[in-house]
Amino acid sequence: MEQKFASPLLESAVTELSRLPGIGRKTALRLALHLLRREPREASALGRAIIDMREGIRYCDVCHNISDTELCPICASPLRDRRTVCVVESVRDVMSVESTGEYHGLYHVLGGLISPVDGVGPDMLEIDSLVERVEAGDVDEVILALSATMEGDTTNFYIYRRLSQHAGVRVTQLARGVSVGNEIEFTDEITLGRSLLNRTPFSDSFAL
Amino acid sequence: MEQKFASPLLESAVTELSRLPGIGRKTALRLALHLLRREPREASALGRAIIDMREGIRYCDVCHNISDTELCPICASPLRDRRTVCVVESVRDVMSVESTGEYHGLYHVLGGLISPVDGVGPDMLEIDSLVERVEAGDVDEVILALSATMEGDTTNFYIYRRLSQHAGVRVTQLARGVSVGNEIEFTDEITLGRSLLNRTPFSDSFAL
Repeated sequence: MEQKFASPLLESAVTELSRLPGIGRKTALRLALHLLRREPREASALGRAIIDMREGIRYCDVCHNISDTELCPICASPLRDRRTVCVVESVRDVMSVESTGEYHGLYHVLGGLISPVDGVGPDMLEIDSLVERVEAGDVDEVILALSATMEGDTTNFYIYRRLSQHAGVRVTQLARGVSVGNEIEFTDEITLGRSLLNRTPFSDSFAL
Repeated sequence: MEQKFASPLLESAVTELSRLPGIGRKTALRLALHLLRREPREASALGRAIIDMREGIRYCDVCHNISDTELCPICASPLRDRRTVCVVESVRDVMSVESTGEYHGLYHVLGGLISPVDGVGPDMLEIDSLVERVEAGDVDEVILALSATMEGDTTNFYIYRRLSQHAGVRVTQLARGVSVGNEIEFTDEITLGRSLLNRTPFSDSFAL
């Protein structure tokens, strides 16, 4: 339902808001009318924050994570283990791994996964720059932390092949097994099979 | 889950977006990352549209509808019937009535409904200005188009009492009855009772 508003200003705000994913015209109108009811400075804070973010944000020259500076805070931190690199698909995955509090190395954000169906080839991802980081000899271990999907597996394998030519680096991947809190009865057979093959000494579980 | 972002710019955009109703921190992050993937001009168009709307929009001096000018396009239009005023709760309701295409008069936006529970009294609504419009003698009919709720009925009654002192004006309200497309079996008894009391001659239904 296309509505004609009495106000072109409202019309244009609604149109722009409805371009956002998951926000239709009705929701956009609700958001716009909400902003009109609130203090003017709330709306301008939102508008400015969006503009400033898009104009000001850049990607880290080394790991391609989101950053306000040439080097992201993680790459710039003297507290991180610089010889371990965790390879992730996207900026969100950096946040996910960081939120575990279990990882203290650096990252490398690929910007996607190899997906022939979607026309995404290795050259469209930050894989060459990963190989360069390894070639520079700064890295002892590359941890592949990609999704457990067809695309993730394809990308894992491609990166593994590229890096296996460099004898000095160890390539590992995330453990796959029964999710913490899940019941065996409801775990799919492939996951269960993998977790049997990759079983760990019982005492290791106390290390957590 | 509070996440610390590598970028204060992203952080602030996410915080501002998550102030919107129905948008949590996770959705806000998804929207922000979406904007980062798109053309920079898309984000600045959104930001500017929000700021311009909030700063530029005003309310019509006569009917209190949203407007970019002193007089809204409806009040300013020479094609509208200036002697009929439809009283609605909010700007959204103006849009709803307009979208029926059945109404060609003017509006009066109250800005809410009388609700003692929420502490909204008649003096906080645009009721005095409605009475002034009627007192000025420009109005033949006031159509009460408020929600069929307790608050709507209270407000209807209050306005009716205020306007009944002016002999020259006819006060009407929206017909209440079985919704078009609804089955009798599933219509609530109050609505069904009202629609029996207010039954209309059968020939009238052809007039639609």
